[in-house]
Amino acid sequence: MFQRIDVGARMSEAAVHNGTVYLAGQIADDASQDIEGQMRQVLAAIDALLSKAGSDKSRILMAQIFLTDLADFDGMNRVWDAWVVPNHTPCRATVQAALAKPDWKVEIVVTAAVV
Amino acid sequence: MFQRIDVGARMSEAAVHNGTVYLAGQIADDASQDIEGQMRQVLAAIDALLSKAGSDKSRILMAQIFLTDLADFDGMNRVWDAWVVPNHTPCRATVQAALAKPDWKVEIVVTAAVV
Amino acid sequence: MFQRIDVGARMSEAAVHNGTVYLAGQIADDASQDIEGQMRQVLAAIDALLSKAGSDKSRILMAQIFLTDLADFDGMNRVWDAWVVPNHTPCRATVQAALAKPDWKVEIVVTAAVV
Repeated sequence: MFQRIDVGARMSEAAVHNGTVYLAGQIADDASQDIEGQMRQVLAAIDALLSKAGSDKSRILMAQIFLTDLADFDGMNRVWDAWVVPNHTPCRATVQAALAKPDWKVEIVVTAAVV
Repeated sequence: MFQRIDVGARMSEAAVHNGTVYLAGQIADDASQDIEGQMRQVLAAIDALLSKAGSDKSRILMAQIFLTDLADFDGMNRVWDAWVVPNHTPCRATVQAALAKPDWKVEIVVTAAVV
Repeated sequence: MFQRIDVGARMSEAAVHNGTVYLAGQIADDASQDIEGQMRQVLAAIDALLSKAGSDKSRILMAQIFLTDLADFDGMNRVWDAWVVPNHTPCRATVQAALAKPDWKVEIVVTAAVV
């Protein structure tokens, strides 16, 4: 079984293989928002893609978080902590890295188990 | 089933497990070339490793792209867009990060399904 | 089969799914040490988590290494080279990125096959 989701000319937003779904790096559509607003958008995009793949946030294996500015670490965590499912928190790593659009403050790459 | 490919003293170039192949970060052998030349080398290295693993670029799940300088984003994309297989485009994330050799402009980490 | 290991309120340290274990980014508990000391701590943390998951360092598929300062590349490699299992070396990629705590010099994200 191999399925791609939201296939574009440059990239797809998700790929499902062997019971695991891989997501493209998710960013905010409205990059004018602050870190908390962008995080809410990013996590909503992840929720939507996981749903299309037959998974959900309680099944995330690993989340790689790229922050443009580590000064946003606490704001990122406030939204993250409210979003994760207690007792089902993902593995995670956070590093600082500049992103493709200067206004993006956060990008998250998720791998999850398909239910 | 567990197979390593091009095993070195420090790292292997690929590992196949459970229907999925993981590649080491691929960089250009000739780091004197510009972003388009380095991208072509990196993608050729990926093609060669995927072939050894019994996969190919139409089966890539995720590509994590590290660019030394986001000013190379458009040049990177020109080579990428010409390389990907229409309707089988990988998931992707691109961030800026300095790489181990100063002349390297791009490094790509690929995970793919084995055919 | 889906198992989380060392589950916290914000993240888990490991997740096992479908014969593969994903680890959270591992960092040094004692961040006052130099790169070699921090590497030894990080690799010991990885060894411990892999053991809890029923895996070990000879089964690592991919290691993503984030170094705060590429000047530590040689020191990181000295500890890495002494740690890896000959003929079973992991795939690897190393980039420079600032980490969440300023004193952390290295963070490593590992994916491994479960024995």
